[in-house]
Amino acid sequence: MDIGIEIYSLCKELFPINRSITGDGVRETLSIIKREIPELHISEIDTGSQCFDWIVPQEWKCEVAYIIDPEGNKICDFSQNNLHVVGYSESVDKSMTLDELEEHLYSLSELPDAVPYITSYYKRRWGFCISDTERKLLKKGKYKVYIRSDLFDGSLTYGEVLIPGNTREEIFFSTYVCHPSMANNELSGPAVVTSLVKYIKSLKNRRYSYRVIFIPETIGSIVYLSKNINTMQKYMVAGFNVSCVGDDNDYGYLPSRTGKTVSDKVAVHVLNHQVLNYTKYSFLQRGSDERQYCSPNVNLPVSCITRSKYGEYKEYHTSLDNLDFISPSGLAGAYKVYARVIELLEHNYAYKPILFCEPQLGKRDLYPTLGVRDRKDDFVQNMLNFLAYCDGALDLIEVADEIKVPAWELFEIINVLLENKLIERV
Amino acid sequence: MDIGIEIYSLCKELFPINRSITGDGVRETLSIIKREIPELHISEIDTGSQCFDWIVPQEWKCEVAYIIDPEGNKICDFSQNNLHVVGYSESVDKSMTLDELEEHLYSLSELPDAVPYITSYYKRRWGFCISDTERKLLKKGKYKVYIRSDLFDGSLTYGEVLIPGNTREEIFFSTYVCHPSMANNELSGPAVVTSLVKYIKSLKNRRYSYRVIFIPETIGSIVYLSKNINTMQKYMVAGFNVSCVGDDNDYGYLPSRTGKTVSDKVAVHVLNHQVLNYTKYSFLQRGSDERQYCSPNVNLPVSCITRSKYGEYKEYHTSLDNLDFISPSGLAGAYKVYARVIELLEHNYAYKPILFCEPQLGKRDLYPTLGVRDRKDDFVQNMLNFLAYCDGALDLIEVADEIKVPAWELFEIINVLLENKLIERV
Amino acid sequence: MDIGIEIYSLCKELFPINRSITGDGVRETLSIIKREIPELHISEIDTGSQCFDWIVPQEWKCEVAYIIDPEGNKICDFSQNNLHVVGYSESVDKSMTLDELEEHLYSLSELPDAVPYITSYYKRRWGFCISDTERKLLKKGKYKVYIRSDLFDGSLTYGEVLIPGNTREEIFFSTYVCHPSMANNELSGPAVVTSLVKYIKSLKNRRYSYRVIFIPETIGSIVYLSKNINTMQKYMVAGFNVSCVGDDNDYGYLPSRTGKTVSDKVAVHVLNHQVLNYTKYSFLQRGSDERQYCSPNVNLPVSCITRSKYGEYKEYHTSLDNLDFISPSGLAGAYKVYARVIELLEHNYAYKPILFCEPQLGKRDLYPTLGVRDRKDDFVQNMLNFLAYCDGALDLIEVADEIKVPAWELFEIINVLLENKLIERV
Repeated sequence: MDIGIEIYSLCKELFPINRSITGDGVRETLSIIKREIPELHISEIDTGSQCFDWIVPQEWKCEVAYIIDPEGNKICDFSQNNLHVVGYSESVDKSMTLDELEEHLYSLSELPDAVPYITSYYKRRWGFCISDTERKLLKKGKYKVYIRSDLFDGSLTYGEVLIPGNTREEIFFSTYVCHPSMANNELSGPAVVTSLVKYIKSLKNRRYSYRVIFIPETIGSIVYLSKNINTMQKYMVAGFNVSCVGDDNDYGYLPSRTGKTVSDKVAVHVLNHQVLNYTKYSFLQRGSDERQYCSPNVNLPVSCITRSKYGEYKEYHTSLDNLDFISPSGLAGAYKVYARVIELLEHNYAYKPILFCEPQLGKRDLYPTLGVRDRKDDFVQNMLNFLAYCDGALDLIEVADEIKVPAWELFEIINVLLENKLIERV
Repeated sequence: MDIGIEIYSLCKELFPINRSITGDGVRETLSIIKREIPELHISEIDTGSQCFDWIVPQEWKCEVAYIIDPEGNKICDFSQNNLHVVGYSESVDKSMTLDELEEHLYSLSELPDAVPYITSYYKRRWGFCISDTERKLLKKGKYKVYIRSDLFDGSLTYGEVLIPGNTREEIFFSTYVCHPSMANNELSGPAVVTSLVKYIKSLKNRRYSYRVIFIPETIGSIVYLSKNINTMQKYMVAGFNVSCVGDDNDYGYLPSRTGKTVSDKVAVHVLNHQVLNYTKYSFLQRGSDERQYCSPNVNLPVSCITRSKYGEYKEYHTSLDNLDFISPSGLAGAYKVYARVIELLEHNYAYKPILFCEPQLGKRDLYPTLGVRDRKDDFVQNMLNFLAYCDGALDLIEVADEIKVPAWELFEIINVLLENKLIERV
Repeated sequence: MDIGIEIYSLCKELFPINRSITGDGVRETLSIIKREIPELHISEIDTGSQCFDWIVPQEWKCEVAYIIDPEGNKICDFSQNNLHVVGYSESVDKSMTLDELEEHLYSLSELPDAVPYITSYYKRRWGFCISDTERKLLKKGKYKVYIRSDLFDGSLTYGEVLIPGNTREEIFFSTYVCHPSMANNELSGPAVVTSLVKYIKSLKNRRYSYRVIFIPETIGSIVYLSKNINTMQKYMVAGFNVSCVGDDNDYGYLPSRTGKTVSDKVAVHVLNHQVLNYTKYSFLQRGSDERQYCSPNVNLPVSCITRSKYGEYKEYHTSLDNLDFISPSGLAGAYKVYARVIELLEHNYAYKPILFCEPQLGKRDLYPTLGVRDRKDDFVQNMLNFLAYCDGALDLIEVADEIKVPAWELFEIINVLLENKLIERV
């Protein structure tokens, strides 16, 4: 099956589920992902657990929520669109005037047809989200407001997969399962990562181990780090926060805090050579879990490759970020970029020549026998360039940057040179 | 009183005094400054004292100087304008033709109305300075030339203040008291520095000690260095040569020789954020006592923030650099830049977070409780950015540069974070 | 004699000789150079000798070579132009049709009047080079093809001069003697280097030793390195591959692999200040023996200064690269650049002031006695700037770069400062 359609199908299946940072929506989402990745290990962390500066919040369960307008119509019905209810709303069952109701309504005047996505995880309130167009049609009169929700001591749920490689050194992927019915931010992330896990499992003789987590944003990464930070700091070579990878717009790259990690190096090289255009953001424009992974005392080498980036597209955090906003080709493009990142990390060694001077390639049938004034073909020229720059200090990506070719065009050349005992790994 | 008017008044009071690199003009100037800064310590260094490669010259005292033209008019009268006599002129009492006189006259054809400022400290000669317009009107005939001056073994005079702080580490300010009646170069320097000393004294719980000197240019800094270089090399954190800080034109910045000292870092940060425009000069355009302070074996971290810089404005070293050329607002602007420099140096520590990951700001009422798609307000955003970048390696200025805000906008944030035990000084 | 005419004359004398990577053409060339440089030591390395990955090839001797066309005309006559025969062609004595002959003909459609230069050192074949214009006039019919050449166990020949200096530290020059009748690439190199050797010998009290080699390209440098690499790696300070230095077009600079060696530093400084325009190439555009000298395990500090660079001009490796393509002025220009490089290397020490602060130049008659507002003259200003920047860490070239003057304008200043005991070598 086409990889884009495969990933899009998973987005579609997961779309209707009401996810939040806790609760059955997360559990249902993870159980579907586990169907695709049987190795997925699911953890539950009790409400009240202390994780660094944070405490795992109560679990939220919303069963029914709607408003009855003065004419008796049911509006803002949670069962129609789970964005209508402010996340973590407490129960309410009241009649009130429009003026009183207005204080609990959220809409976007700049996007009148969109229902915004609003949450209040850490302060108790209730509210409804509505399109500005619909809001403006509301008439004076008595409104009945009804939310039946529950906030109770439960747990926070996340999933992780550890795929062992030849070394304990790890490549890390992190993505979210806490957003209700929105597509780019965020079903694209878990759906693309699910396919990447299959790709990683398919790699024979893996160099690296892979740690892949499906978590609620912020509190989830903090919980996860609080349990795994020592191992992660010790073994992580490169990590990626995978979010907003579903649409067909240009790519984006959000560097790590320093912008100088292995994660950055490989991301920049792949983007430079594999996609037409991309926007390089500043770490000042961070906004997702790189906030935790790159925080000073955590300091992990994590960057992000996105399509339309969180906070940078108008449909972000609204009902317009739906299944029409993403596409099989958009998802497939991001998948291929990340698959290339993995392929490149697996190949990124430093090499150096075994011999002094250029080797005599001609006697190995690797060089034209006739000395003419024209340029060599690309294969020969790239081989000569690789031999000229691979000094044992530069790794493959750095050599490829010097000689201005995609690193993957050197894979075959390296194999030929290794077979001919002309270079060795450092 | 408005700070600009206070500084301008001091310039006005000091303006008429005939200063040179030695003599009573310097002493009178320093006694007026001592009235403002009672702690000022005044030193006298004997003529003939060896200071590195230099010898303290004789003291010069000029009592009367003028020319009588063929019609009996007194011109170039020193008592009217002390610029009329070449500094360190020897006595003369002669009649001569205009042709003979011409060899001792100095004027500027490119600035016909200006009387130039000329000196001959280290070679005996005599001369008069005159405007080119006046010079062209001189008629053939007999001129009587009269200078009554004295060159004698006396001393060179300078003033210094040492204001102790919590550490022996020093911030250094140097300015001149050797220019006769000119305003920007140089009464602006000593007048601004006098007010800065009052500001420094007003700071409670000072981190740094402050060394402030009022000296004659070149020979004065060499004399001072010859007596204090070991202490200065050991304790100086940042220093500034304060000169030409009186007019309303754009600011200038002359870096230290390397351009990479603490002095440069703080100067550039303050200028980037506090003034509209400034010219960045090269150290090749040096010309004041940074020549000594930054010389290779001295190598102190000294830069200069100026308004119209010495050598770069047409009124420089002429009678046009007068009290009209400077202004209260110009002086106040420079004062505020240097006061900011001091404030920033006092605050420029490196910090790092105490906790792992972002802290939960919400539970400390430092974060909005509602998760919406809009940007946080500046205070919250700057706090988050500060927490994201303060890794213990970057100091405050470097963090502020990374997050693109004036460092002083972070002072309150740092206090809040310290009070909440979220960060600590490194 | 004018240096350009001297060098051009040598090119002219050497031009007709049939050179290849081995053989009597190389020997005859070296014997003429030895007439100019009696110290030239000539070495013979036997066919079959193993040098790193390479084996010294058989010696090639071509005595007669031509084609008889169907009308009985002799064409492609080696005795008329030695480019007509593919280098290292084996013997042949056959009649054949034009179609059969075509497979052994080489011409350039883009340069129809040029006879290309083609070689086949490491694979046995035969062939003729012909202008495309002449080729298109060939008629159907029987052709008689005749080459009498010999491939036999002999030796590879190269020349070297070692000119001792005060230290064993070496400056290295390498150039080629393997090209048949072409002028820029390559008689210009050996002819210019021959004159440079005379210049080096004329230098009194040489700081550096000089190693100068005249070799066949590629195999010659590999052979030479295989015998001398340890000494060269231990003592070489800077080296230059001298090739294509004969025409009047703009200069070119091909950096070493890192671009950061002493060779690069001095080449860039000389080019920036001595020539009007030059092209900075990338090491990716290498193509001459810098391929060996800068290869990772050899890693010598070698760059190239050229005029029209190999591979970058249309006449390259054709009969159009003849004595008209080069000129006395072109050769002289390159000679003067390299002579300047040598002069600068000999002078490139780090200095530091002996005293603290600026010295009192006035008492040494090195400074104007009158203090005026104008700029000092260049000599005084450069002296002050040199004193301000020579901190013992920067060498002469680095100081000259800082103060934006050609380093050679500081030679006299340095002498004056040394004589006055104001600076010392570090």
